[in-house]
Amino acid sequence: MAKIMMGPRTLIYPMPALLIGANVDDKPNFMAAAWCGIANGQPPMISVGIQPHRYTYKGIKQNLTFSANVPSVDLIRETDYCGIVSGSKADKVEVCQFKVFYGKLSTAPLIEQCPINLECEVLHILKLGSHSLIIGRIEETYISESCLTDGRPDVDKVKPLIYTPEPARQYNVFGEVAAKAFSIGRGLVKEDSG
Amino acid sequence: MAKIMMGPRTLIYPMPALLIGANVDDKPNFMAAAWCGIANGQPPMISVGIQPHRYTYKGIKQNLTFSANVPSVDLIRETDYCGIVSGSKADKVEVCQFKVFYGKLSTAPLIEQCPINLECEVLHILKLGSHSLIIGRIEETYISESCLTDGRPDVDKVKPLIYTPEPARQYNVFGEVAAKAFSIGRGLVKEDSG
Repeated sequence: MAKIMMGPRTLIYPMPALLIGANVDDKPNFMAAAWCGIANGQPPMISVGIQPHRYTYKGIKQNLTFSANVPSVDLIRETDYCGIVSGSKADKVEVCQFKVFYGKLSTAPLIEQCPINLECEVLHILKLGSHSLIIGRIEETYISESCLTDGRPDVDKVKPLIYTPEPARQYNVFGEVAAKAFSIGRGLVKEDSG
Repeated sequence: MAKIMMGPRTLIYPMPALLIGANVDDKPNFMAAAWCGIANGQPPMISVGIQPHRYTYKGIKQNLTFSANVPSVDLIRETDYCGIVSGSKADKVEVCQFKVFYGKLSTAPLIEQCPINLECEVLHILKLGSHSLIIGRIEETYISESCLTDGRPDVDKVKPLIYTPEPARQYNVFGEVAAKAFSIGRGLVKEDSG
């Protein structure tokens, strides 16, 4: 299998398409972000890489709080819009007709139309180069009641988006279940001990 | 839209299903990891959240290098196996029949069968609680030639996996393209300025 060297590149799949929220000068604003990951289990934390010149970043620094909202495919236009336009130039909440609510933290705006909302308190900001990596402790998680099945989050109802940078910048939806995790690999455990 | 509070939870979609590699006591080992994200653009960096008691973590600390390998759906059994079994108990490379190669760094093992491979040098380790967040600078990216289309990575050929924790722990494949990014939202820009 021939391998091609591509130089140092941030090429992992999949990346999430999330809406990161912050109050900037006391007004809610949201940006699209794909450079997010889970950072810690207990206590629960996420990381978000953001360029410091971003308008949303200004709000995160002001309040040391932010939100991560998981949009469904129904919000694909709004999500993309929030990645194109700066909050310094437009009132994205108004344009997107987002219904904003606040939870435990009074400064982390949450989008009602997004099925999942995390409100976060900033613990660390690492200046890494072009981006700052923000580590946020998740203070509360909200889910739309309509996205639960038997009381549990149901990805088929959430309908989240994948941001895919290659071969072209695009959003993909989730495909079928390929296998159960912590299960399909058990066959190899037997082979190993056999 | 009624919202349910679920307590602080690491619930974002999608999460990647990656194989993180390290040499432990000079032998290559791999673990499945879903708590990864892009941390920085220039220079390119990723973050990986790992529990410090992991065998792979030991190798990362020994060499301050690691790899991130993107498995395709063809490697779903091997990927899951690498999340079930500890390298302290089994030679996962042998069980999975991984062909291991090394790139610029001599201590970050890469899996030839995985379409994409990133070799990384550790820049930071943040002890956050249950997990340590490892920030790695990507030194080189490799892609299998068969996964290129017109010289660019093609996600339809890579066939990466999504790890989905809810409603059940499972792997999903990528679904269809829902829209072009930095494009579908432009309609709202017009409405805004109109």
